[in-house]
Amino acid sequence: MAKSEIYFKLELALETAAYPILIGRHLLQDNSLINHHVQSKQVCIVTNTTVAPLYLPVLRKALANKQCDVVILDDGEFYKTSSSLFQIYDTLVHHQHHRDTTLIALGGGVIGDITGFAASTYQRGVSFIQIPTTLLAQVDSAVGGKTAINHPQGKNLIGTFYQPDAVIMDMGSLATLPSREFRAGLAEIIKYAILQGGAFLEALLLALQNRMDCHSPSLPAIIRDCCLIKAGVVQSDERELNNRALLNLGHTIGHALEACTHYQRWLHGEAVAIGLYCAALLSHYEEGLSIAVVNTIDELLRLAELPRRIPRDINLLQLRECMNQDKKIKNNTLRFVLIRALGDCYLKDGVAEPNLERALGEAFEGE
Amino acid sequence: MAKSEIYFKLELALETAAYPILIGRHLLQDNSLINHHVQSKQVCIVTNTTVAPLYLPVLRKALANKQCDVVILDDGEFYKTSSSLFQIYDTLVHHQHHRDTTLIALGGGVIGDITGFAASTYQRGVSFIQIPTTLLAQVDSAVGGKTAINHPQGKNLIGTFYQPDAVIMDMGSLATLPSREFRAGLAEIIKYAILQGGAFLEALLLALQNRMDCHSPSLPAIIRDCCLIKAGVVQSDERELNNRALLNLGHTIGHALEACTHYQRWLHGEAVAIGLYCAALLSHYEEGLSIAVVNTIDELLRLAELPRRIPRDINLLQLRECMNQDKKIKNNTLRFVLIRALGDCYLKDGVAEPNLERALGEAFEGE
Repeated sequence: MAKSEIYFKLELALETAAYPILIGRHLLQDNSLINHHVQSKQVCIVTNTTVAPLYLPVLRKALANKQCDVVILDDGEFYKTSSSLFQIYDTLVHHQHHRDTTLIALGGGVIGDITGFAASTYQRGVSFIQIPTTLLAQVDSAVGGKTAINHPQGKNLIGTFYQPDAVIMDMGSLATLPSREFRAGLAEIIKYAILQGGAFLEALLLALQNRMDCHSPSLPAIIRDCCLIKAGVVQSDERELNNRALLNLGHTIGHALEACTHYQRWLHGEAVAIGLYCAALLSHYEEGLSIAVVNTIDELLRLAELPRRIPRDINLLQLRECMNQDKKIKNNTLRFVLIRALGDCYLKDGVAEPNLERALGEAFEGE
Repeated sequence: MAKSEIYFKLELALETAAYPILIGRHLLQDNSLINHHVQSKQVCIVTNTTVAPLYLPVLRKALANKQCDVVILDDGEFYKTSSSLFQIYDTLVHHQHHRDTTLIALGGGVIGDITGFAASTYQRGVSFIQIPTTLLAQVDSAVGGKTAINHPQGKNLIGTFYQPDAVIMDMGSLATLPSREFRAGLAEIIKYAILQGGAFLEALLLALQNRMDCHSPSLPAIIRDCCLIKAGVVQSDERELNNRALLNLGHTIGHALEACTHYQRWLHGEAVAIGLYCAALLSHYEEGLSIAVVNTIDELLRLAELPRRIPRDINLLQLRECMNQDKKIKNNTLRFVLIRALGDCYLKDGVAEPNLERALGEAFEGE
């Protein structure tokens, strides 16, 4: 069995909690590492039908010395529901898990979000480990402590802020990730590059030009940098009262695209990719962001082989309606993250309507 | 309309939050007081079928300047379920409540617990006001930030720690409280007296000897003192890692009595009353607590007209089984709060089995 190797270890220190983020390889099969982070006698692994056959056996083996129960959910955003949540609660109660049990999320963003919510609410909060197996979860959803389930009328409407005890990222799990899912993760990485600019953006551009995949030697450092950027923002605003909302760059329009296609057409990262391009155009019309920067963003997305245009069969009026729905339930303002320059973004409530229309029109694939 | 009067204003200062506890009369009809504490444009009142006809109209009137939606749940512990919880979420989503909405719990412990849970999880946490209308909620459940719903297999198994923005206690609401409910609240007050001892216990004894009811002039100060005792404990251990468990005095056996009668036979406070007497006897056998103190506790409960003995139709073996069930799911130890002296209690894991049997036998009504 290959020896485990930790490439990077970060420490996320918040007011309410501090925890390590490990980035490495062969970590799941490292019994002593896993047991160092899971100290309870009981553990419940939550995963899905896609990930279970790939990584559940090796993780269970590492936990062979504990009472280890498993919940295997169906795969996909469609199952991020109260019914899946109660499947987890029922398993915990049935197998008499105590207040000092540990929940482990083994999977992508959906598994991480729902398991985190269960951990934050079972017996008023139990320990929780994130083992994100997708690129998107590794660079984004597994870090920062947002948990959620969907309500039939809206995504992530029910949730908590609840930090894990550790995040363990095994790069090996990316080898089994479908290429489309990998590229969806790249969209969030490009988002960080726009927020950060400078050397990180340069490094990402170079990696993309060299056709980045899960074996790229630069990937671990890129994941580390994304985690550091996110950690910095979360440390300054854990409960998203201000600056944490900057992480929603590309998401106002991205969410609307997902909602108006009923979460069936795009992966989250794909919708965000189109949203990033729209945000760049909106920043151009609203704030005079140079076309050169808009083109750089477009080029990053193109190199990552991500969708960048609103397809012609999307009805723009319907898209605006979805944005308004989201707005009404969130905070009653249409809030955008705009780009002043690469590495310099800011929040803006209420952009000029004609500018929004021009940006959407320009991003529209048209005839 | 009678002028509002604040008898006492306490400030509960925790690491994560600080909030006022107001004890007074005619507070619900004081528009400026209510609007001082509810600053959002949207508000959702959660109450039940018993309380709504009594106090909902006056509270709605005070909030006439806001979007005010209402959820009226069926009354009782039986409805502290996920289905009631989703009734609240559905109302919030349907009426497009934002992240800056306020939830108001108008009712007893069940309403407070479930509304607090909804507030802690809707859009990852919104503002929350407790308006406890029962004596038990005023002295106990509305203070300290425990929220919960029941799981079919156990009470309060799903919940959070989430502090309200304010607790507003209108003594007037006790006038409509059935006498049995009032006395159930006295059981928790007697619990505080045993924990605290000294002048508070003396004052309570005197008040009970004078047949305390909702009009007793000493009642507001007694409620204040209970809140102060609870606040002190919660401030030292918000998440019940240690000393907060002292507040469970009488509850190990009390919970088992409730569970083995399917929450149908006793009000929570009544089961706690029997549990307090059992805890006194157990402290006698386990730690040599004097019979004089056991008798003082018995006398307090008698004056409050509360049940103090385990009725003869209760099967003691079944009761022990319920205690074991509770133990298994909580922390795998049978944990008691024992009494060293009035005002001096402590936690003990694993008492001697024969002493527990003697205590239960002695508390048993027998033939």
